[in-house]
Order: sequence, then structure tokens, then C-alpha cells
Amino acid sequence: MKKVTIHAPATVANLVCGFDVLGMALNDPQDIMQLSLSDEPGIRIRHTDGFNLPVEPANNVSGAGLLALLAEYPDKTIGFDLVTEKCIKPGSGLGSSAASSAGAVVAANILLNNHFSKADLVKFAMNGEKLASGVKHADNIAPCIYGGVTLIRSIFPLDIVQLSAPPMFVTVVHPQIEVKTSDARQILRKEVLLKDAIRQWGNIAGLVAGFMKNDYDLISRSLEDVIIEPVRSILIPGFDEVKKNSREAGALGGGISGSGPSIFMLSREEKTAKSIESLMQDVFTRLGIDFKTYTTTLNNEGVKITEQE
Amino acid sequence: MKKVTIHAPATVANLVCGFDVLGMALNDPQDIMQLSLSDEPGIRIRHTDGFNLPVEPANNVSGAGLLALLAEYPDKTIGFDLVTEKCIKPGSGLGSSAASSAGAVVAANILLNNHFSKADLVKFAMNGEKLASGVKHADNIAPCIYGGVTLIRSIFPLDIVQLSAPPMFVTVVHPQIEVKTSDARQILRKEVLLKDAIRQWGNIAGLVAGFMKNDYDLISRSLEDVIIEPVRSILIPGFDEVKKNSREAGALGGGISGSGPSIFMLSREEKTAKSIESLMQDVFTRLGIDFKTYTTTLNNEGVKITEQE
Repeated sequence: MKKVTIHAPATVANLVCGFDVLGMALNDPQDIMQLSLSDEPGIRIRHTDGFNLPVEPANNVSGAGLLALLAEYPDKTIGFDLVTEKCIKPGSGLGSSAASSAGAVVAANILLNNHFSKADLVKFAMNGEKLASGVKHADNIAPCIYGGVTLIRSIFPLDIVQLSAPPMFVTVVHPQIEVKTSDARQILRKEVLLKDAIRQWGNIAGLVAGFMKNDYDLISRSLEDVIIEPVRSILIPGFDEVKKNSREAGALGGGISGSGPSIFMLSREEKTAKSIESLMQDVFTRLGIDFKTYTTTLNNEGVKITEQE
Repeated sequence: MKKVTIHAPATVANLVCGFDVLGMALNDPQDIMQLSLSDEPGIRIRHTDGFNLPVEPANNVSGAGLLALLAEYPDKTIGFDLVTEKCIKPGSGLGSSAASSAGAVVAANILLNNHFSKADLVKFAMNGEKLASGVKHADNIAPCIYGGVTLIRSIFPLDIVQLSAPPMFVTVVHPQIEVKTSDARQILRKEVLLKDAIRQWGNIAGLVAGFMKNDYDLISRSLEDVIIEPVRSILIPGFDEVKKNSREAGALGGGISGSGPSIFMLSREEKTAKSIESLMQDVFTRLGIDFKTYTTTLNNEGVKITEQE
């Protein structure tokens, strides 16, 4: 095989009470990437989207992942040509950089006859996250590669746990404002109250149990964040209103996607998810802020091959 | 029915990374309680053990639970006679007060034809915990009443989640030293580092997933406490040695039972659990501290009726 086309899904990191350790893959939006194996060493990157991203491999998120992979591949005579059409907007909080780096290394591994394990691929792709946000984290990378809901119990050493979950609809609004991941990280306090931490770990334990038991009510009760959201939501106009109205419309719950500015809401029924999409549109139209919305579902397969030759 | 005899199990609260929210019931030791319904109002308590516990209902842990229950029972002409043989030593960190209060209210509810729900019983029994330690908590009460492993996601409102778990052996050593629950609580810092809290909630999420997937390796990796144990273990001589030696002997992991001084270790095989019991005995014999050890199993039924007439 010389050429492969893959789709790399958007992801929601943190999942309200699972800051830095939980993530979930979505069916929409997805980046489309075409990777070709070349007998010319090096990496050549082209973007067909309009995001004006750097294309030098060391400064490109996909490139950073591919460079890490090539560094561990024995045959030094090979290279890659990558053509990317990004559909996940950079800076949306929907795992855009993770999709770029995870998609690229998964595609490369297919062309290399699965030389590497999935855990290896997560490690390579984290170099893309390091480039994008300054921090190696895997709460978007892991669900992007594995699909579904993933727990990153630990980064060093890497310990990824796949969690089963019932079918869910996900509504997302991406207000077109900028929240830098590094800024969103800096405003967090270094210390938290023990009593808040206890409440948070009660909630994450409840959320994991709710997912694994297919208990929608427990999922809903556990979708509470007493530590990160109260600080970060200040950066997102309309957040409180979207959350309150979505809960009233029947959402199981939701919150900030990753470090924002996107907001996501989980629903049991498509009808509920659609009505939440419409109320999100109302809020941001009223605020005069451009936005994009999605009503989609939990993606269980992760990066997917759509063509190969 | 006029008279019932029940066994109320010892419990291990916290389960290493689940401070204040996780608990597990054990098959040994168990308190034995005989409760009779009386047409004489009030509560009369007698102990056949040698612990010299107060027997006035308002100062007795079982009494506090029964008083709360009677306050919500419509028929004010009834009363109870209780005879208790405590086998779980008070102050051991094995849920002795929880067994007293939970056992009493479960027995009372049987005599009242299950007038109250299990969640009601937890609430009544928490009055016993309040009396014993000054704090209403349910991480011993809930597993004592429900059996198995329980998550108390929230106390107000009360939200108890039963978690499935694979068969496990539990080795316990109770060094005969005094650690007051209130002291063990006071030495904790009110604030914790966010990075430690993140590690802790990664671990509790992993532990819950490990229990529900019957994944012993994941359980083992998740049994890590970076917040409470480093502070409280100082109060327990021999702790580090017991933990290190138990891990080397093949324990899945373990730590302080509740607020101590008991130490528990989980094992997959009985043989491992037995060898851990023996090494625990070695450590405390060498330290010249009296102790008691148990090798037992996870109890899945909670308070159990053994006789009724």
C-alpha cells in the first residue's frame, strides 16, 4: 500500500469532571488526510483548507507527530507526502491539533504495515500537542485514536483505558472567539480545596460508573465540575445561559469542550440534541457572536481509513 | 416477626484513592446483633462484648441510628431491645461504628416489615457516625448495608452507586494503637495541589473501571493515593514496610483502612493473601506492637439476617 486516506474525528477533552484524564470522540466534524509513502526521505505537507497553518514539518502539528514516528522507524530511506483538509477549526477546543497529529501517525502506521502499537502512536502524536499547546497531553489524542470514551489514567507511564458508554447525541457550539489553551491553563489555581477535589473525584467515579452501566441518570448527576468550569467559563460569553437552557431542554449535561471556547452538551435523544442546537444558535445570535454548531453522535471507531491504494 | 439476629460486616472506607467516597464490605470480622420489637416505647441496649461502650441510646452509636429511625416511624408506641456482641473493635478503622448503626437500623427495618428504603436506612445510620466521629459520612455505612463496593457520589443529596467487582481476598492487620478519626481528619491539609488532585481522580476513575471490567491489573495500577496516605500513614508505625512487603508478595495494592490504624491489602489469590497476613504479623511482632490480622474476602451481601422468630 502506498497511499491512504483517513478521517480523524473531533474530540471533547475533560468531559466536565474529568479534567486532563477523560476524552470522547465525535462523528462530526472530522479532518480528511491523504498520506503517501515516498522513497524520498523527509516530510512534505500541503493544506487544502484555508487556515494558513505552517507547513514546515517541525512547525506543523502533523509533522511533529510524523517526525517522532520516523525517528523510531528503522528504515531511514522513506518519507511521507501529506495533504490535509482540516474541517476541525484550530483553536475551537474540539481537538483540532490532536486530529492532525493522531490522524497523520495512524495513517503512517497503516502504510508501515502496523509496525507500531496504538500506545506508540499516542506517544508520537503527543509531540503534536506539545507543539500546539506547550504540554504533552493525551485527552484528545487517545479518544481520537481509540474512539469512544477514553480514560488517560496516567501520562508517565502512559496508561489508557477504554470505557464503554451508551449511545449518546452530542450538540456542540463553537463561538468564533479565541481562547488559547495556554491562557486557559494559566488562569487555573495551582491549589484547590480538598473538599472540592473530593466532590470532583466522586463525580468522575460516578461518570465512569454511569458510562459503564449505561445509566443515563447517573451520567447526568455526575456531569458537574466544581473546580475548572467556574474559572474557565468566565472566558466564554453565553456559557451560563447555554448550560442552563440546555439542562432545561433535557440535556444530560455538558460544559466546556477541552479548554474552550466550544461548549458541548450530551443528550439521550436526537430530538433533545436538535432543540439544544437551536437554543445555542439563539444565544449566540443574540450576543452577536459568530458561531458554528454541530449535532452529532459519539464516535466509537476513532481514526478511520476511507480509501487506500 | 418479633426478634431478629443479624450479622453486620466490617468495612474498608476510602479504598486508597477514593477518600470519603468509596467503601467495601468484608466477610470477617462481623458484629452480631439481636434486636427485639417491644410494645414498650424507648430503646434498651445491652452489650455482651467487653468494650465498655455507653448504653444510653443517645450516646450509643446503634441507639443514635435507632432514634433517628423511630423519629420517622408513625407508630410511637413501639420500642426496641438490642443485644450486641461487637467483634469489630472500636477504633480499628474497620467501620466498627458503621456496623453498629447500620446493623441496628437494618434489623429494625426487618421488624417493621421494610417500612423504610435502603437509602433511608443509610441516612438514619449516619447519625451513629456523627456521634462516633463528629461527621456524617457514609463510606462505611453504605457498603455495610448494600454489600460489595459502593461509591457515595454525594452525601447531600445522598447518591449511592453499587459497583460490581471481581472476587478478591482481603488481608487486614489491626495494630492495637489508637488513631482517632477526628485527629486523622485534622492533620489533612485543607488545600491540595491541582496536579495531585488530577492524579487522584485519574486513579479513582481507573479503579472504578478496573472493578467493573474485572481487570485486576488496572485495579492494581490504580491503587495509589498521592494526597491522604502520605500524611496519615505517619500515624501508623510499620505502614511503609507492610505496604512494600505486601506489594513484593503479590498484593494488588492497599493502604490505610478508613482513617486507620488498620492496613488492608487486596489480592487475587488466597495464597497471596495468606502470605501477606504472615508478613504483616512479622512486621508488628518485630515492632513489639500488639495486633490482630484477618484474611477474608469481599462481602457482597451486606448486613445479613441469620435468625428470626
